[in-house]
Amino acid sequence: MVRLDQDSPLRPAATPTSRDLLGHRGAVVWLTGLSGSGKTTLARALEQELLGCGVLSAVVDGDELRLGLSQGLGFSREDRRESIRRAAEVALHLAEAGVVVIVAHISPLRDSRALAAERMRERGIPFAKVFVNTPIAICEQRDPKGLYKKARTGQIASFTGIDSPYETPEHADLEIRTDRECVGESLAKLTPLALSLAEHSSAAMA
Amino acid sequence: MVRLDQDSPLRPAATPTSRDLLGHRGAVVWLTGLSGSGKTTLARALEQELLGCGVLSAVVDGDELRLGLSQGLGFSREDRRESIRRAAEVALHLAEAGVVVIVAHISPLRDSRALAAERMRERGIPFAKVFVNTPIAICEQRDPKGLYKKARTGQIASFTGIDSPYETPEHADLEIRTDRECVGESLAKLTPLALSLAEHSSAAMA
Repeated sequence: MVRLDQDSPLRPAATPTSRDLLGHRGAVVWLTGLSGSGKTTLARALEQELLGCGVLSAVVDGDELRLGLSQGLGFSREDRRESIRRAAEVALHLAEAGVVVIVAHISPLRDSRALAAERMRERGIPFAKVFVNTPIAICEQRDPKGLYKKARTGQIASFTGIDSPYETPEHADLEIRTDRECVGESLAKLTPLALSLAEHSSAAMA
Repeated sequence: MVRLDQDSPLRPAATPTSRDLLGHRGAVVWLTGLSGSGKTTLARALEQELLGCGVLSAVVDGDELRLGLSQGLGFSREDRRESIRRAAEVALHLAEAGVVVIVAHISPLRDSRALAAERMRERGIPFAKVFVNTPIAICEQRDPKGLYKKARTGQIASFTGIDSPYETPEHADLEIRTDRECVGESLAKLTPLALSLAEHSSAAMA
């Protein structure tokens, strides 16, 4: 479709970019933390909040990936690395299409998280790492999927925080303590972070 | 963000979906065909055409995937299957976020293409398969990356159409003959197909 600029009737207008269409750029907000720390809950709540602000948003959830793209990967260090790598690649594709992506992934390995961040940087995708820092005692008490119980009784091996390491982030852009604050309080920090990465301003929508 | 319906000031409005934001739904247009058949050229042209129509669009390119998500996969039948599966999974994530995805992938295996289509169907994502049916003699004559030459001289093994099979699609939604028509003529068929899958109407934008 050839359209003409209003100012210059002889010059065809450039094709709009995804940013022109959406009014914001793609970005990645990466939530890391133990199983049961509240990553998926926060990710879904943030997605809804962003959609409500007119920002195209999507969640990439580590558990769901294991039913699809990461099917067949286990919980060895090598498979965890690959699982984090694939989550990052999917997030990259989405963000390059203009979507603000919220990744909810235990992502316990420091070097793999760094690789994900580096991958975004080299492709010019804004990225923030959020440490969902819920103490393991609280996560185990919540145990929403009964996984801690299974890990403690030996029915599951290589469970993060029990018999597989969680490497605490050294430089998170944001830390969330779901044991001390409600979802609304966490969102009050996450939403401005995401909107700022996306360079979205509500004023631009008016 | 809680907003109120204009009609009913006491009822909070539902959070908008990606479709509400975009004015169309996500979908997948899958281009299959030999190396050099013109898939990437068509995919990029269609992406621009759709963006120009206000439709959020993105390309998932098989060759590019091999530099990222499908890094390390080779050209054995099993690796090709996995490469097609991963392309389908990325396309699914994008389409579920609302993007009209154009996959450009040789995807020579009939059963793998069928699995990709089935995966979209089970998730309710509109899907169309397009056979970019350029005769191999023409592809080899074009040889944009010099790959046919390398395959003929034995520098590359398992090259589709030379020493690795391309299983012709039986039921394509559309067939494109890039040896008989120009890009504009191909787009004249591809664009309406994509817009119809996305249930996009320009009238809705007014």
